[in-house]
Amino acid sequence: MKRVAIAAYGITPFSKDDKKIESILFESTKNLLENNPKIEKNEIDTVLVSTNNNSKYLSPILSESIGIQPKIAHSIENLCNSGTNSIVSAYSYIAAGLADIVLVSGAERYDSPGQILEWDNSRGEFKHPIFWASIFTSSYKRKFGISDEELAMVSVKNHSQAQNNPNAISKKTYSVEDVMNSKKITDDLKLLDCSQSCTGGASIILASENIIKKITDQPIWISGVGQKTISAGFTKNNSFNSMESTKIASQTALHMAHKEIHDIDVAEVHDAFSVCEPMALEAIGMANHGEGTKMVKELYETKNLMINPRGGLIGCGHPLGATGIAQTIEITQQLQSRARNRQVENPNTGLVHNMSAAATSSTILVLEK
Amino acid sequence: MKRVAIAAYGITPFSKDDKKIESILFESTKNLLENNPKIEKNEIDTVLVSTNNNSKYLSPILSESIGIQPKIAHSIENLCNSGTNSIVSAYSYIAAGLADIVLVSGAERYDSPGQILEWDNSRGEFKHPIFWASIFTSSYKRKFGISDEELAMVSVKNHSQAQNNPNAISKKTYSVEDVMNSKKITDDLKLLDCSQSCTGGASIILASENIIKKITDQPIWISGVGQKTISAGFTKNNSFNSMESTKIASQTALHMAHKEIHDIDVAEVHDAFSVCEPMALEAIGMANHGEGTKMVKELYETKNLMINPRGGLIGCGHPLGATGIAQTIEITQQLQSRARNRQVENPNTGLVHNMSAAATSSTILVLEK
Repeated sequence: MKRVAIAAYGITPFSKDDKKIESILFESTKNLLENNPKIEKNEIDTVLVSTNNNSKYLSPILSESIGIQPKIAHSIENLCNSGTNSIVSAYSYIAAGLADIVLVSGAERYDSPGQILEWDNSRGEFKHPIFWASIFTSSYKRKFGISDEELAMVSVKNHSQAQNNPNAISKKTYSVEDVMNSKKITDDLKLLDCSQSCTGGASIILASENIIKKITDQPIWISGVGQKTISAGFTKNNSFNSMESTKIASQTALHMAHKEIHDIDVAEVHDAFSVCEPMALEAIGMANHGEGTKMVKELYETKNLMINPRGGLIGCGHPLGATGIAQTIEITQQLQSRARNRQVENPNTGLVHNMSAAATSSTILVLEK
Repeated sequence: MKRVAIAAYGITPFSKDDKKIESILFESTKNLLENNPKIEKNEIDTVLVSTNNNSKYLSPILSESIGIQPKIAHSIENLCNSGTNSIVSAYSYIAAGLADIVLVSGAERYDSPGQILEWDNSRGEFKHPIFWASIFTSSYKRKFGISDEELAMVSVKNHSQAQNNPNAISKKTYSVEDVMNSKKITDDLKLLDCSQSCTGGASIILASENIIKKITDQPIWISGVGQKTISAGFTKNNSFNSMESTKIASQTALHMAHKEIHDIDVAEVHDAFSVCEPMALEAIGMANHGEGTKMVKELYETKNLMINPRGGLIGCGHPLGATGIAQTIEITQQLQSRARNRQVENPNTGLVHNMSAAATSSTILVLEK
């Protein structure tokens, strides 16, 4: 089996800009190619597009716009973890010997159709993710005796960390009081507890072991892959205060990478809402059940950037199809010691957690330098 | 590298029925599971959905509806060759060792948004596929001195062959005169020269070599895979009377399978319009350039079913995301000698040709028993 590594990346600022989906795909890919002059673009043999946008044939469109004629070309959608689904697909094409250099480009507009969960009739009219997030928050608080203020710390930390990320949508820091006093959305959620759907793109190139040296002297290896889908409807979850799909995906990925959770030096976790960060930390095994918010508080107070150094979804914004790719880029930069003022000290192993629709589906990637 | 085989299949009738996309996906999958009682559905570890439908999260929805919790789950779109893109993706997951049993389910509604090529501004307002097909037909006729009557034979043959396929949308045969007298759509195309967008679903299960014996004693191996994308806009084709992407994909797939074109005993080619069948036969090397219609006529006159035995897209109907899967099912049935009154005599090796948008992108699969 061929080993697979991340060879290059490009990204756009995350914003509320009204751009065409084709332009967003092009912009992050152009950024990638400009920053990696050793890549012969004609050697890119697969182009995968990750998006919830309704436009068709986006991979051939992106390919033509950058002037290449790949072998494999298509779009991939699985709501909010489309990005890591695409990366795992790219991994498979290379490991299977069908491709050597794969471009994965994720893009979304602020008005993505993936925001509205039309499919889940178990929610009745409550189709916006805010409703499952509210039920999760209520359940998590009740089960573990957690306060709104403790959960607000996730937003405080991630907005703070986002200030070191020039591409993040957040341009200021907030206090716990600011979060508590922000607009009340439901009984359990304030505006600053939520990530924002936004416009943004992120591109990554994966390559096989025999090609990678031509492109970069700092390859980041994908050593663990775990995925799990529990259901489509969030009311089929075993509980509203834990993430079963994330737990299973994490165990699978760590097992494949021959790692334990304490080997992870830096991680991106899918904080679509405040409550998701402690729940994810618990599901992947970094915190005991019910102690995720305690870990978040300690990290913030000790200025430890190891969880969501780029600011997470709450600080960066959440362009659905691009998010998993942007998370993977962050861990790649961290392991390459190129994360500038977001840099965690000398990390060797990192983890990406990307999920969809109330953690009904999760992906975990383990990355190593 | 693990070898990959087709282990099972299920299909729906192709029709103009007004069904929900989720129901179509469920229907062909149910047909598959009912016909293959040896499959433990909980062992299906990947579910890929092939469609142009705008609905999101269809793979988790299908998974939940059949009561399974897969690892990998997402939708794949590349217009009319979404189906074979999904099969190649499934192949990769198994060959790479990330999955053992993959369900690929394709579905489309008669009103698919994939019919309108919004993206190709090179066509001005001429966004329906009928316009590229008309230009191809005009160019092919002029270049090789082919008559409308000779092209009409494709429709005659494929409607005739469809009468042996209980799932085909066509329920009657036509003469050359019938085709010539059918409604004129453009200067070069009549109604019966066109495949119809329709409602239909097709599902297939791929499995790894070490699993396959538990499921079937007639595995059909995927021995060759070729894909090529030339452009997104059809005016970027080198010519309007040949299919460059098909030619390259065919060479790649045959090379991978260690086969020559004369080894192919039965083939499905993507006859979206009459002119596509001779052009495809020429591109894959079964006929000399300009002699595809001569081959079609000979096949029809000698009752040789080797090209599009199920009736092709013209006879069966063309539910975009399901077509490539339905084509692959046909070749699988042929190689298993289970094609009943469509059966080609004792075939050992078959080929699937599935393409998108004026052959700007093509897939070729070589299958063997």
